[in-house]
Amino acid sequence: MAPRLPEKPPKSQGQIPYAAVPTRASSDSRSVRYSLGRQETGEVSDFEDNDEFLGSGALPDAMEVSDNDTLYYGVSLGTRRRMGKGKGFWVTVVALVTVSMFGVVWLYFDGISWMRRSKKRNVILMISDGFGPASETMARNFWQQTHKLPVGFMSPLDEILVGSSRTRSSSSLVTDSAAGATAFSCGLKSYNGAIGVMDNQAPCGTVLEAAKLQRKMRTGLVATSRITHATPAAFSSHVMHRDMEDLIAEYQIGNYSLGPAVDLMFGGGRCHFNPQSAGAESCRLDNRDLWSEAKQAGFRLLKDRKEFDKLEAKAETLPVLGSFALSHMDYDIDRNPTEQPSLAEMSDKALRILQAATKDSDSGFFLMIEGSRIDMAAHTNDPAAHVRDIIAYWDAVAVVRKFVDEHPDTVVISVSDHETGGFSVAKQLTTEYPEYLWNPHALEPVKHSIEFIAPQILALGDKDDAKYTLVRDTVFPQWLGVPNATHDEISAIAKETDSVRLRQLLSDAESSRAQLGWSTHGHSAVDVNLYAHGKDAHLLAGNHENTDIGHFIIDMLGLDLQAVTSLVRSDRVRQETAPVKEAWLGRRDLDAADHYPHLH
Amino acid sequence: MAPRLPEKPPKSQGQIPYAAVPTRASSDSRSVRYSLGRQETGEVSDFEDNDEFLGSGALPDAMEVSDNDTLYYGVSLGTRRRMGKGKGFWVTVVALVTVSMFGVVWLYFDGISWMRRSKKRNVILMISDGFGPASETMARNFWQQTHKLPVGFMSPLDEILVGSSRTRSSSSLVTDSAAGATAFSCGLKSYNGAIGVMDNQAPCGTVLEAAKLQRKMRTGLVATSRITHATPAAFSSHVMHRDMEDLIAEYQIGNYSLGPAVDLMFGGGRCHFNPQSAGAESCRLDNRDLWSEAKQAGFRLLKDRKEFDKLEAKAETLPVLGSFALSHMDYDIDRNPTEQPSLAEMSDKALRILQAATKDSDSGFFLMIEGSRIDMAAHTNDPAAHVRDIIAYWDAVAVVRKFVDEHPDTVVISVSDHETGGFSVAKQLTTEYPEYLWNPHALEPVKHSIEFIAPQILALGDKDDAKYTLVRDTVFPQWLGVPNATHDEISAIAKETDSVRLRQLLSDAESSRAQLGWSTHGHSAVDVNLYAHGKDAHLLAGNHENTDIGHFIIDMLGLDLQAVTSLVRSDRVRQETAPVKEAWLGRRDLDAADHYPHLH
Repeated sequence: MAPRLPEKPPKSQGQIPYAAVPTRASSDSRSVRYSLGRQETGEVSDFEDNDEFLGSGALPDAMEVSDNDTLYYGVSLGTRRRMGKGKGFWVTVVALVTVSMFGVVWLYFDGISWMRRSKKRNVILMISDGFGPASETMARNFWQQTHKLPVGFMSPLDEILVGSSRTRSSSSLVTDSAAGATAFSCGLKSYNGAIGVMDNQAPCGTVLEAAKLQRKMRTGLVATSRITHATPAAFSSHVMHRDMEDLIAEYQIGNYSLGPAVDLMFGGGRCHFNPQSAGAESCRLDNRDLWSEAKQAGFRLLKDRKEFDKLEAKAETLPVLGSFALSHMDYDIDRNPTEQPSLAEMSDKALRILQAATKDSDSGFFLMIEGSRIDMAAHTNDPAAHVRDIIAYWDAVAVVRKFVDEHPDTVVISVSDHETGGFSVAKQLTTEYPEYLWNPHALEPVKHSIEFIAPQILALGDKDDAKYTLVRDTVFPQWLGVPNATHDEISAIAKETDSVRLRQLLSDAESSRAQLGWSTHGHSAVDVNLYAHGKDAHLLAGNHENTDIGHFIIDMLGLDLQAVTSLVRSDRVRQETAPVKEAWLGRRDLDAADHYPHLH
Repeated sequence: MAPRLPEKPPKSQGQIPYAAVPTRASSDSRSVRYSLGRQETGEVSDFEDNDEFLGSGALPDAMEVSDNDTLYYGVSLGTRRRMGKGKGFWVTVVALVTVSMFGVVWLYFDGISWMRRSKKRNVILMISDGFGPASETMARNFWQQTHKLPVGFMSPLDEILVGSSRTRSSSSLVTDSAAGATAFSCGLKSYNGAIGVMDNQAPCGTVLEAAKLQRKMRTGLVATSRITHATPAAFSSHVMHRDMEDLIAEYQIGNYSLGPAVDLMFGGGRCHFNPQSAGAESCRLDNRDLWSEAKQAGFRLLKDRKEFDKLEAKAETLPVLGSFALSHMDYDIDRNPTEQPSLAEMSDKALRILQAATKDSDSGFFLMIEGSRIDMAAHTNDPAAHVRDIIAYWDAVAVVRKFVDEHPDTVVISVSDHETGGFSVAKQLTTEYPEYLWNPHALEPVKHSIEFIAPQILALGDKDDAKYTLVRDTVFPQWLGVPNATHDEISAIAKETDSVRLRQLLSDAESSRAQLGWSTHGHSAVDVNLYAHGKDAHLLAGNHENTDIGHFIIDMLGLDLQAVTSLVRSDRVRQETAPVKEAWLGRRDLDAADHYPHLH
């Protein structure tokens, strides 16, 4: 007989210990039953209510288990060797006496200072948006082949791999970046589109807010997207949909009950801080001038590389808002280094400022760094832009690892919110059985992203000859590094007037030559790699739900997110969300020019 | 100035420590340089000569490094806390005294038995052929959704994830199963197609052979493919190409200089043991009756489930050869359990026999277990057959984990040789921006593999009406569980006479409904998940070359593969390879009936 478990499985932090699962009915003489679980740790927090699946499939109403099934917590890795009883007694006695002696002596000489030791912690959470397992292999192969490195080459990420992260949201097996980032920031599963809110759309306190309020830590956000984009937004605001970026910008400069929670912001997205009256420099739906409001609130403001370079790494620099592009910052492959800093440079400066601001304090800092556009290149199925943004992210990882090595009590976690593109390091080109290879060298000469190239072709309108010439003489040989494009290929691209189809043709030209495959312009469900280095990094070993990353930070910093949740729930800004939502629904095409699809 | 490193990087076990890599030229004010490496352990072995890359790209002739670059070994995870000098002295003195006291007492009571303790080790290497990271996520989601399990469900593999394995071979960034298995069995990189031979086609001693010869261990191979197929072959034979399965069978029954090295074989592939005179029961090119030869050599022979069930788990059972299909065993989705045992059942019986045969000995056993057909289903892009063979593999993992938990000094490693299919857990169905979801429930009602279905349609030849009826009334509603197939879909499948295109149409019918993507019928380069549990499993944490798996086994068992290499190099069978190679080149279509492409 199969007893029924309670309607809900026992709550835990992120991972739900689960009852053994009966395998398929089979004629096996001995039926194989899983009896697997997760160690249950820490206390239960109130906002774990959301972690049942609300996606495309049927909801679990109960679990059936057989009589033989057991729950257990953790896996025993071995058994103890037996000793003779008489010997065992004396060994125990002598061991206890000697260990006690040593303990007393240690406590006298050293334990008191141990008890007084600093509880200072720095947490650096790096997010490689849209970077799946295949992307790391591809980037490593690319770097090895183009730099003639041996098989054993380890990227800055390879060296600190500890496990993997499972990415599903509360509304689907395939998450978006908003729900993905909220899993990290609030430690709970929410719906696709949710920014710092629970599955029921009520705000949830974030690790950044709690670090600031409860531990008096300094906080920072670094991204290559608009700083109001889903990932940084989910740490610093509470809105029902990711596209409400006007409102997100208001949160980020402290225009809500908690006041300014973010001390440092480097990224793009200045258009959401500029009033509508600024014309092309604004993408706001109202006339609020958040740039001026931020200045009045005490923020030091940076608009370009020159101001960034002049910025000193000292405590008085904070709070600071550096916004180096109206929308997203450029793909690294397109980036002019005299105009925009790299992700590594922004990360390095952020670390030095935050370190300077906390060096004489018992509180450390929390810094989120996002390689935002790894994802967007994958949405466009643009392998060259994808790999260059990954290498730029490696650069940032190398900077951060150096900092971690030099500063004990610091940890860096690097993880993706999800995979993008259904990307694979192989592509079958014909119906013939495929060769076993891919060609990294096809990506090496590419000079620009598809997002850069496509608008240049479309801008020529109906000047067909000029378009053909541009594609033949510039796009293929100079920008894509392809000397041998066929007339048909050139002609198809020159003639294409639909923006999405044009991007697809350019993607095919690159991807087929490299033999790299894509199955979607959206996201996929595959687990992503989890990397960690420094203080307590070993606790992240193994396979985890994305919410476990949030709980790791909560535990390390001793945060009480529920207390912050109570504060932000009563926030007046919450009331404004409904009309604003109507507003963004009316402007869905605003972003169309700068990346393939609207939703990342 | 950039000094040049020696032509070859220093040798190591699998991973090559490498010099720091200059990043791209950039205008960064401070240039970010990686200075990454791998800890060099153990001695250098002679057959590491092959691990430079010989693939599709340019060969590394030398590495350029800048003056600033450094080599370092290992990463420091923290710094030691300082103590006062005076205190430090006394703490040290007291610590030394107490630890010494404890040591003397322990040695007296217990250390002598510790020094005499068994060096017995059991190594179980499980290989999930063609199982990439996306496959585990897909199977977990499938199992969760079809069994109404909570988000936190952990599969038998999820619970023991320790890292990832890099899969490239010496001839390509995308390996085949032969080179993949040889990386595990010989601990070195070889070319695609290589079976227990080095890159120069000279035989290399395998961990199975060394375990048998040097440690007197019992050895076993369990697979669901032909036992002569690439993966089991690479542990038990030395031939220049995987397709020389006639010769592989001769090795496996001990017809070479080492004699019988494999004590237990369970799987398919009896046709390579039967003489050509056996007609349809043979796929040999000669008239040798290896089945009888095996009997004369002392092997107990099993041909069906009934004989398998009767087999007792005792030492006298060995050596044993159980061959339960002429070619591959059935996909688990097609398997009739009254005719063929499952992978879990074969694994369980193998473990019990090997345990019985070694329980009174100081030597343990080496057992390789392969979930062979996970790969073949992915070659056909058949998601339902793929997921069911993965679940069958989980069942086997659960059996093995239980054994490991009950037997200390045993380790199980589970790893794939490579990914197959360029598989992704998302598929864009239209040019519209894709939804973020996939549908596990589409796979649940599928009753048969595409390899089962396609021949039934083709067998009707030109009887068009009968084909349409079969597809409409049986294939879609009963075998694929699709009640709502359109006339066009039914018609296209019924009319298709090309075997490869028919399989593709059936794949599309399943994959589109589930929203699962494929980019190739071959393999891809993505790193695969690495799982381990039991004795010293923690040593496999992190990102590794596939050769590291071989070296882990070599180190654990204290094997000298070079000595075995010397023995097998002088083997007379080596002389036979050239003519046999000519033979297999003439019969490339032999396998066409039982799986999509020839090469796995």
